[in-house]
Order: sequence, then C-alpha cells, then structure tokens
Amino acid sequence: MSRLVMKFGGTSVADLERIRRVARLVAAEVATGKQVAVVVSAMSGKTNELVAWTDGAGRAAAGLPESDDEYDAIVASGEQVTAGLLAMTLRNMGHKARSFLGWQVPILTDEAHGRARIEDIPPQNLEACFEAGEIAVIAGFQGVTSNQRITTLGRGGSDTSAVAIAAAVKGACDIYTDVDGVYTTDPRIESKAKRLAKISYEEMLEMASLGAKVLQTRSVEMAMAHRVPVRVLSSFVEPGEAPGQGTIVCDEEEIMEKRIVSGVAYSRDEAKITLLGLPDHPGVSSQIFGRLADANVNVDMIVQSRARSADTANMEFTVGKRDATRAVEIVRAAQAEIGFEDVAVDEDVSKVSVIGVGMRSHAGVAQSMFQALAEKNINIQVISTSEIKISVLIDAAYTELAVRALHAVYGLDQL
Amino acid sequence: MSRLVMKFGGTSVADLERIRRVARLVAAEVATGKQVAVVVSAMSGKTNELVAWTDGAGRAAAGLPESDDEYDAIVASGEQVTAGLLAMTLRNMGHKARSFLGWQVPILTDEAHGRARIEDIPPQNLEACFEAGEIAVIAGFQGVTSNQRITTLGRGGSDTSAVAIAAAVKGACDIYTDVDGVYTTDPRIESKAKRLAKISYEEMLEMASLGAKVLQTRSVEMAMAHRVPVRVLSSFVEPGEAPGQGTIVCDEEEIMEKRIVSGVAYSRDEAKITLLGLPDHPGVSSQIFGRLADANVNVDMIVQSRARSADTANMEFTVGKRDATRAVEIVRAAQAEIGFEDVAVDEDVSKVSVIGVGMRSHAGVAQSMFQALAEKNINIQVISTSEIKISVLIDAAYTELAVRALHAVYGLDQL
Repeated sequence: MSRLVMKFGGTSVADLERIRRVARLVAAEVATGKQVAVVVSAMSGKTNELVAWTDGAGRAAAGLPESDDEYDAIVASGEQVTAGLLAMTLRNMGHKARSFLGWQVPILTDEAHGRARIEDIPPQNLEACFEAGEIAVIAGFQGVTSNQRITTLGRGGSDTSAVAIAAAVKGACDIYTDVDGVYTTDPRIESKAKRLAKISYEEMLEMASLGAKVLQTRSVEMAMAHRVPVRVLSSFVEPGEAPGQGTIVCDEEEIMEKRIVSGVAYSRDEAKITLLGLPDHPGVSSQIFGRLADANVNVDMIVQSRARSADTANMEFTVGKRDATRAVEIVRAAQAEIGFEDVAVDEDVSKVSVIGVGMRSHAGVAQSMFQALAEKNINIQVISTSEIKISVLIDAAYTELAVRALHAVYGLDQL
Repeated sequence: MSRLVMKFGGTSVADLERIRRVARLVAAEVATGKQVAVVVSAMSGKTNELVAWTDGAGRAAAGLPESDDEYDAIVASGEQVTAGLLAMTLRNMGHKARSFLGWQVPILTDEAHGRARIEDIPPQNLEACFEAGEIAVIAGFQGVTSNQRITTLGRGGSDTSAVAIAAAVKGACDIYTDVDGVYTTDPRIESKAKRLAKISYEEMLEMASLGAKVLQTRSVEMAMAHRVPVRVLSSFVEPGEAPGQGTIVCDEEEIMEKRIVSGVAYSRDEAKITLLGLPDHPGVSSQIFGRLADANVNVDMIVQSRARSADTANMEFTVGKRDATRAVEIVRAAQAEIGFEDVAVDEDVSKVSVIGVGMRSHAGVAQSMFQALAEKNINIQVISTSEIKISVLIDAAYTELAVRALHAVYGLDQL
C-alpha cells in the first residue's frame, strides 16, 4: 500500500476553518487507499507569541543561549495544539486518527536545542498506526533527545520533519503551502513567472539556499539524500476542489525536457564587508574566516583582489544582514594582528542568482547573464558560481530590474 | 535534606510579572537549603482558550466523549508553557532549574482521559534532579499512560499532581493560591470570617467537597492517604515580603485546640428533583439511582417521605445544576416502569453545611444549627449528615443569611 506524508504549514492551519480544509484534503488522499501521515506546524502567529514570552521571561536579557532546552519545551507546544486539533477534526469527520508528538513517534535528534538535527526515526510506531487504519497526525518542528528532552529543529523545521518521516516510512511527501508550486521567479516581482511542473533536487536546493522560501534548505538536502519524492502544492483550495498539480521535486533523470536555467532567485538579506590594504601573504584569509567561523558567522561570497599598492590586497565578502555588525566587530578586534588598513560595510546590496542543471552542459550561461545586466547598466560587485548556479552581488536598488531582465533572457517568460 | 513541593495555580502564573514573583518565592525556599520541586498550572485563561478550540474542532458537535486523548494532548500544552517559562526565569535569576512534563517525570496514570487517576510516580528522575542541585519545575494537571499517551487529571488536577509528587519524594506540599489560607467561611459573605491556622484532613475534605474552592477534593484525599503535610498560602505577596503562615492541613492529632465546628461552607450548584407518588415497595430506589449512576449523574442528598395517600411515597434528591436536565430526562424515560406520578425540578436551592471533627464528641451541634436557621425563618428542605458535617438544603435566596447566622452561632466570629 502506498504511503504519503502530507505537510501543512502555519498559514494552512491558522484557524479552525483552515484546519477543516486541511482535514478534507487529508480525507481525499485517504479515500484513494493511501496510508497517510500528516505533519503540521503551529497555527500561524502562535510560535511568535510563545517566543515573545520566552523573551519576556528574561531569556535574552540574561544572556541565555539563543536557544535552549526550556525554549524548546515552550515553543514545541504550538505544534502540539495543531496536531491534537487536526486529529480531533478528522475523528469528527468519521476517520480514525491520532496525534503524535516528537517524543511519541519518536523523532530522535541530537542535543542542539533550537536547531537540532534528526538522527533517527524508528518507523515501528507509525507503522502500527497505519496497520490499525489510523491517520498519523504528527507535530512538526520537534524531536526528542536520547535523554528525553524536547528539541526543536529551527524555523521551517516542519518541512524537514515531513521529509524525514517520509524517508523513514518509505513514502512520498507532499508539502502544502500558501503557493501552488515552485515558480521560475518571485511572481510579486515578475508577473510572467511560471510554475515549474518539475524541478531537480539540486536546483531546488540552490533555490532554497538563495532565498526562495517555498521549501526549507535542510528538507531539500534530506529529500535528495534519501531520494524522497517531494511535491509542493497549495492548501488554499475551496471545498471539493482538487489542489492542482503543484511542483514535483525529483531526480534530474526524471525530468524529460531539460532547461538550461530553471529559475531566478534573489536575496536582500546581504551585507558586503570590505577589508582594505590587507598584507598579501599566506594565512591571512584563514585568520579572518577562522575567527568568523568560530563566532558562527556564515560567510557567503568571497572575492580577493590586488590593491593599488603592489604588496597589499583588498578582500570583499558577504554575510547575512543580521550578522554584519558582529562580523565587523570581530574583524576590527583583530585589526592589529591581521594588519589591514580599514574595513567598510555596505548593507545596500542584494544577491541575484540564476539556477539550472543545464549549465553543466551548456557554455555561455554566465556570459548571457553578464550581458543582460550590462544592457540594463547594472554593475556587478561580486560573482560566485557553483556547478548549477551563478550569483552576482549588485546594488539593492536594481534587484527587481535584474530579476526581470534575467527571467527574460533565459526564456523563462515563455515556458 | 528536607524536600518541599510548591504548587502555583493559574492566577499565580497569569503573566510574566507573576511568574517572576513565583520565582522569587521559590528562590526563598531554596535559600533555606530545601530541595524544591514546583508544580504549575496553565496561565489563567489559557486552558479555557484551548478548550474553546477543541469545541470549535467539532468535538462536542460530533458527540465525541466529554474528554478524549486528543483533548488531553491539546490542553496539556498550557502547563507545558508555564513550566518552561518558570524554569527559564529561575535560570535567568542564576538558579539551576529544569522543566518536567508529565511523561518526563513520569506521572503514570490510568487511561481515563480528562479525569485520569495517578497510579504511580517513580521518584528516580526527580531525585536525580535534586542530586544535581536543580529545581524541578513540573507541569501540573497532566500525566502519561503506560501506552505513552498524554492524560489530564481534570480541572484542579494540579493540586493532586503536587500532593502526589510530595508523597512520591517524601516531602511537604505548599499550595500557593490567591487567598492566604483556609477560612472559617467565605469572606465575601461574612467579613468576620477568620483564617484557620490548622485544619484536619477530614475537615478539609468536607470543605472541599462542599464548595470551598481552596483545594481540590482529590488532592485532599491523597494527602490524607499518604499523610502529606499540606499548607495553603497566598502567592500574592510583594517582593521581599514573606507569604505568611497560611493554613496547615494535617492530622487531627496535630491540632491542639479542637473546635466543635471549624467552618461553614455553601454551594449554589444544586438542583432538587422531586418524584411524587412513588409506589412504596422495595427496589424502587435502586431502580432510580441505578439508572442515574449508569449515566454518571452524581446524586448527593436523598430523602424519602410517605405521601398523603398511604401506599405511595415522595422522594427528593439533589444533583449538580448542570446534571439537572439530564437527570429529569433519565427519570422520565423510566416513568412507566418505575411508576411514579410526577417529577419536579427546583434549581433555586443551595446547600449550607457546618463542618467540624468536634461533632464526633459533642452532642447538640445539629440542634444549634436548626435553631439558628429557625430563628432567621429559614426553612430546611433536606438534611444530610456525616460524622463530621451537617448539610441542609434551603431556598437559595437565604444562602448568605444562613452562612452568617451559622458562623455566629458556633463562635467562629470570635476565633
């Protein structure tokens, strides 16, 4: 019998009416004879309310760690409520259903509270539930340590819960959200954006990392590692209406018509830090980035160039906007030791990226990108590439213009 | 090292400021060298919010049982949040603390969801917590079945959690509430009501059963069975202020100066049902009350009297107001079989009781009561007695008058 894990995010379960809508979508899948597990987030707004309480309890003020075991015990209650309400609603509709909290599944994680990683999901309890003809309604975002303490997986962790559970019970995974699939770019910026029928794991991973908020990066990594077939689709359908086809995230081999570029992503959450007059000798980079790594500052793009004076270099790198101040403080504290002349921050930048597995076999993709941007007089500050993506850092004011130009140049308007 | 379980109800933890006040009270006990466990309720209002959601999920409409496993999973989240917030606040103040949910202690219960009974509390986890120098902050009102499902103990169950935990770890139990002890009667009715320094388990049990809302009946039963010393005191003290002496609930033997009557209680949650023209033969009572018991209707006072016609009887009994309609339906459905002439309901009644272990050895207590009521022209409709209490059912309009008259006649005004 085929198994399906359906995941519903916070906006899909925001109130009781929406929970009933979710119950109908679940019932429709059960009616096709599938064994169904449902993973739910907290009702939207609830997690923020709980987090605000933890702040009010003096957590931040006391210098308590960003996330700790008590924080997790508190915020995990949000998903607990949704899981109970959905199980109850399904019973009310005449189905057999029961809720599972992270510790009841169990979803075993490491002890990194607030950003725990799933280590194992023994499938026996869920399989017993399926055998009993019950729908398993599982609280997302949470797990339990071997020491029986509640953990959370971090924001967006319910996607990861769903994919990990699908991997554990060898089922497919449908991620229901407030959009009807993955688009070639953000439709709020380019109205000609098209829904993709299929996208490869690798492309989805880049899209997620680069700011497309449809799926959480770790969930895509996990889907790719365990080859879980994932579908993204909308929960916002009227009673009796089917949810549409959505976007299937799958192996590259399963996509017949390959595109060179599948999507254009952008991120405004960027800050560029420039170090001027660095001594040009080995070990400087490792001094800088070692310090940043120790402080958990995630560095993205890096460029080093020779300065005008022959024996010094300049270095530019980007970090998330919220880390910018801290990164500068860290670098400045080591100024004497590293020996650079000055440091500057520019938060007025954004990163625009084109993604596509077709790049592997097609030359000239970067060239088309640079030319399209040049034609719009958009200056490229930093470039970084991977096998299937090219990202450029530009002046933030040009973000929308760049996205639309790139969407057009790769023919995504006509998909 | 002496151990103390401190319990704080919903109004004592209603917001973050009050949780800080609770944390200070806990810290003061820790400073005296005690090993401390704290039991908390949901922030006041939270349980009602959660229950309203379960109603919205169609639980009542679908004829789902009054309480079920999903209901319990949902409402138990309220105490979970408080426990985490208090543990966090204590840490913030520099103490070692951690939260325990019902399943983490574990508080093992039977499977009667919504009104589960505690079966066992293995003390090892709490003792390990004490050994580690940590304050154990425990979510009240909840437990877990041997099948790993969350249960709740029913309204007021946090008192029972606290006493049961005190019994398990062989400690004393302080119940913090919004009043500073147990009073001779409700001070809102009789301003001369006095706080009792001590009260016996038996008296407290009658007081709790008879409508004094300070302690939950089951918690008193449990304290009596395990001889847990319980103290009732107020959490509403200013920073730096001590919480006062409260009222100690203890063995009768520990109370030096015995009073004949310790308190006057009343309950307006009464409905009187009268069956007229019952056939006067054996088995009629068992027919009636068997049916009511099967439907879980709790019958309190019962009086049977001969009717005017020599071969029939009238019967009066009382039930809780919310059961009145159902009780009448049940009785009416069996009218042909039982063979009574008519049934009447009167919801305009209240029960007033005097309680005191001194009654055992003093005659004339009932006589003083009846005389005091007669002097105020209060008609007694039904009387019921136990070894240490006398209750009368009267017209509800006379409730306050009766309470004040009885409070005076037994000298409680001058305590």
